[in-house]
Amino acid sequence: MTHETLDAAAEILPAEAIDAIERAATSAHRHEELFSERAANIKQSAVRDVFDISMRPGLVSLAGGSPYLQSLPLERLGQTAAKIIAEQGMTALQYGGGQGTEELRTQICEVMAAEGILDAKPENVVVTAGSQSAQDVAAKVFCNPGDVVLVEDPTYVGALNTFEAYQVEVATVPMDADGIIPDRLETRIAALQAAGKNVKFLYTIPSFNNPSGITLSTERRQQVVDICRKANVLVLEDNPYGLLRFDGKPLTPLRAANPNDVIYLGSFSKIFAPGLRIGWALVPAHLQRRYYLASESVTLCPPTLNQMLVSAYLRDYDWRGQIETYRGLYKERCDAMLAALDEFMPPGLNWTRPEGGFFVWVTLPEGVDTYPLLKKAIDAGVVFIPGAAFTHSDDPSNKIRLAFSAVPPKSIREGVRRLAPVLREAIAAL
Amino acid sequence: MTHETLDAAAEILPAEAIDAIERAATSAHRHEELFSERAANIKQSAVRDVFDISMRPGLVSLAGGSPYLQSLPLERLGQTAAKIIAEQGMTALQYGGGQGTEELRTQICEVMAAEGILDAKPENVVVTAGSQSAQDVAAKVFCNPGDVVLVEDPTYVGALNTFEAYQVEVATVPMDADGIIPDRLETRIAALQAAGKNVKFLYTIPSFNNPSGITLSTERRQQVVDICRKANVLVLEDNPYGLLRFDGKPLTPLRAANPNDVIYLGSFSKIFAPGLRIGWALVPAHLQRRYYLASESVTLCPPTLNQMLVSAYLRDYDWRGQIETYRGLYKERCDAMLAALDEFMPPGLNWTRPEGGFFVWVTLPEGVDTYPLLKKAIDAGVVFIPGAAFTHSDDPSNKIRLAFSAVPPKSIREGVRRLAPVLREAIAAL
Repeated sequence: MTHETLDAAAEILPAEAIDAIERAATSAHRHEELFSERAANIKQSAVRDVFDISMRPGLVSLAGGSPYLQSLPLERLGQTAAKIIAEQGMTALQYGGGQGTEELRTQICEVMAAEGILDAKPENVVVTAGSQSAQDVAAKVFCNPGDVVLVEDPTYVGALNTFEAYQVEVATVPMDADGIIPDRLETRIAALQAAGKNVKFLYTIPSFNNPSGITLSTERRQQVVDICRKANVLVLEDNPYGLLRFDGKPLTPLRAANPNDVIYLGSFSKIFAPGLRIGWALVPAHLQRRYYLASESVTLCPPTLNQMLVSAYLRDYDWRGQIETYRGLYKERCDAMLAALDEFMPPGLNWTRPEGGFFVWVTLPEGVDTYPLLKKAIDAGVVFIPGAAFTHSDDPSNKIRLAFSAVPPKSIREGVRRLAPVLREAIAAL
Repeated sequence: MTHETLDAAAEILPAEAIDAIERAATSAHRHEELFSERAANIKQSAVRDVFDISMRPGLVSLAGGSPYLQSLPLERLGQTAAKIIAEQGMTALQYGGGQGTEELRTQICEVMAAEGILDAKPENVVVTAGSQSAQDVAAKVFCNPGDVVLVEDPTYVGALNTFEAYQVEVATVPMDADGIIPDRLETRIAALQAAGKNVKFLYTIPSFNNPSGITLSTERRQQVVDICRKANVLVLEDNPYGLLRFDGKPLTPLRAANPNDVIYLGSFSKIFAPGLRIGWALVPAHLQRRYYLASESVTLCPPTLNQMLVSAYLRDYDWRGQIETYRGLYKERCDAMLAALDEFMPPGLNWTRPEGGFFVWVTLPEGVDTYPLLKKAIDAGVVFIPGAAFTHSDDPSNKIRLAFSAVPPKSIREGVRRLAPVLREAIAAL
């Protein structure tokens, strides 16, 4: 506030109020000095940017990767929650242990067994407030400012934001249709280490990567871990979609044969309910204590009621059958999206054909910047996430992420139909 | 593993298994290099150490500051949860906005109004996964390694652990019976700033400090903020117990008259249910965006179901009446503890007489180290937290924290009765 406006205000406000206003303006200004260096690195995720827009009636949202919850037995789940609170409320509403309940950690080992991790022990599981919190804790435990975290390009934007809050250097590793390219991983690590960098971990979503839908092939899985082990780099395997493979058995996680080199992150957000915010980390035994203490320092303990509700779900419901339902449902939606893309998209585009998960990744011709297309798409009644959201660099991206998880097949088709002219126009303008 | 033992193992294990064992031992060893510097700063809280022990049947736990939940209407709360899940499950079990629901943020402003903060706006409230997470985010947003955080001595051990994970320098400010001593605060800040230190914020629990039960007097409250403002130091006011003053109205928070200089932390853990992990920060408008983004980078969003359950509680239940119930109940327990201390404690001790909250702070004669007394107390059938847990220094402490919140008056008396001979013996041994 300038002195002129303060003088003007003096005619209508008591002196005390003017003091307060001036004091406020002065504090606000001086507080800028107080932010940590990392605070400048924390950005809004584009996915969250469009979170509210996506809710607008009439719009088809192919943006958010929300799971489709309509198929859950809500009435019965409500009764289960009621019973937990009425009969065990003293526990459910009270503080719990920082690592999570033993019952849930034991059940989580069964969930992981369904994916091919057969040797997990409850004492090495740390329950977290969603998988995001598990990523945050990993960065907290391992990363000093300036350390390097390797990520797939593209990768999950929430993880990028979390890691960057720790002032790490994010280094990308290219993927092809079979996931991370092992040779490129090896040379990338070697070059970084030769330059004196501390490479702490590779963050990877090997099955149905968000946003690309790409899956690391079986042949490459052990190679990737071996390259990291040789270079003394941990692997942070994020596998929220692993059980949602459309056909066949889940692919064996990197963790399965590598208990000492992989921190495995799991989540109930995609196979049960994200609003409960229950995820977990399976941590190598020799790293468990520090990981656990760091987790406790952030959240004290994960919400007890939510853990008990997940436990009841895993104990008393056909959770395996529900996963079968999800697999069929998401396969149908993915097929609908691929068919619509075939039907409506102009020439010059290509897209991934995922084996599971929630996303298709569309590549436009070189030179198209998809970010400004978002506004046009919203005007046309459809929302997507521009590719630039999923990379560390500030360069324009010619990609878009389309989520098929939350929208019924008919709406998927309608959304793609609305999107097509926006993309066609952008290509024509090249 | 030495080569001898490997050779011995070779006689009974296949070569592949031995490779795996050797590889595991090697990885584990080399991974030590990968920890961040901050990881070494993250310690187990003594409160959590005794968390499991406190649960043993037969023991009287005066250790944990758990609220007394038996007076909550559990049956009805269960029905409310059932209704939310059955009728609004698509929202309650789904991802939500990173800042928390607008309904809850609006209601939180009403809760704060009951304490004397009359100008809070929902857009400046950030809902967090418990108040612990709000402390973590504050450190993340403001603290570079080496920056100074001021704390009362003694203070909440969970906050100490959280701040130390950011490699801050924790500097203590002494209290007397009226809380922080303003002159000492002023000279402490001046000395630190003269030494070139960046003092970022004062973390304070002005009402019924955990662990001491001490309350910052009304006269000193504005002084403390003014000293900080003058020195461009923020105030992080943690007020989980504010509404639980035994007699009279709640004391006006520091935030009330100082909207630009105080980040206010509130929690439903003490006035409703800690197992839901719902807390909040009321952030000055000019700091809100960075605070909110940092919170989102840690947890993506607070649990939706839990927010909706708290909202229903604040909307449909007599939460003010429940607070009255708690106030009476905790007053009765505090009185029981003070009476038992008068009755059983040997001469040479003194203790605080809190006006609210959960804790009494007992001071033994100089030279007594209370940490080794914990084991003896457990043998005698009672648990407490040694004073050393609540200070940054590693020096022995002659204090103990006794919590009266979770235990009925008769058990409090029994616990103090069991504790007395342990303390008498320690004093006699001086």
